[in-house]
Amino acid sequence: MPRNTSEALARAESLIVSIPDYPKPGIVFRDIAPLLADADALRATVDGLLEPFEGTFDVVAGIEARGFLLAGAAAIAAGVGLIPIRKAGKLPRPAASVSYTLEYADAAIEMHDDIAPGTRVLLLDDVLATGGTIAAAHTLVAEVGGVVTGTAVLLELDGLGGRSAVGDDNLHSLFHV
Amino acid sequence: MPRNTSEALARAESLIVSIPDYPKPGIVFRDIAPLLADADALRATVDGLLEPFEGTFDVVAGIEARGFLLAGAAAIAAGVGLIPIRKAGKLPRPAASVSYTLEYADAAIEMHDDIAPGTRVLLLDDVLATGGTIAAAHTLVAEVGGVVTGTAVLLELDGLGGRSAVGDDNLHSLFHV
Repeated sequence: MPRNTSEALARAESLIVSIPDYPKPGIVFRDIAPLLADADALRATVDGLLEPFEGTFDVVAGIEARGFLLAGAAAIAAGVGLIPIRKAGKLPRPAASVSYTLEYADAAIEMHDDIAPGTRVLLLDDVLATGGTIAAAHTLVAEVGGVVTGTAVLLELDGLGGRSAVGDDNLHSLFHV
Repeated sequence: MPRNTSEALARAESLIVSIPDYPKPGIVFRDIAPLLADADALRATVDGLLEPFEGTFDVVAGIEARGFLLAGAAAIAAGVGLIPIRKAGKLPRPAASVSYTLEYADAAIEMHDDIAPGTRVLLLDDVLATGGTIAAAHTLVAEVGGVVTGTAVLLELDGLGGRSAVGDDNLHSLFHV
């Protein structure tokens, strides 16, 4: 990676803010908003997320809600279409629904079947923690006939088991904490 | 606008699907997912949203959740930073909160103050209906010290009073229904 790119990525990483005890005591929330607000940091981040996957996907899919920000950006950067993976109850014609367990509650995500069978999907989200949502997204894409050819996350929280929960050999985390 | 652009936009518009009686009887839901899923339609749409505002904004702000998809795309297309406007309770350090009334319920949206005073903000959302959310977003941007220099929506539902509720002379709707 050229030096100016790695410098831009280092600067982007430095813009992630840690908020102790949010949303509850003992949890450190990683706030990527200042990174997104900076044009150069945003562009370097999106390019860095996409770089390992060049030529391996036909569309990007973003997981609601913060994954939508990155997926929209990545779709334009890569010149591909954009698939929203939504929380349950938001889509008018869900083709598939997958339930999973979060730390504090159950949840479900849904997709339309706006992709042709065999479409290669790059999954995007902001943070990989325990991996429940991203693992469910893999199942969901398969249920509508797509093939997940990679998963890109901005920030992986190491030590929470997310990587093994997702089980994707092509999982790329731009930053780690 | 060059002919190929207007053709691409017409094709994009044709991909919007009308879903009768969703989310309740008598309502016609406008589903933009097939447009987003198509690379050429997405690019033409984003370029069409930005075109009237070239050089007039420093950042784009997207309204949760579908506005995030367009704002992410627009940020990369325009080479600017990206500000999420979130539903209440999602931000770790909200600097401002504005409540408003939706058709069926009250709601509130929030922002961080990650922009410098006087930053010129282009607001983006998918659909303009009664305008309550977008009007609240204008108030919110002003409360954190920004200046809304334009509002771009993919689809305006004419006849619901949204345009006058928003009251932005620089409101641009790419498609109308």
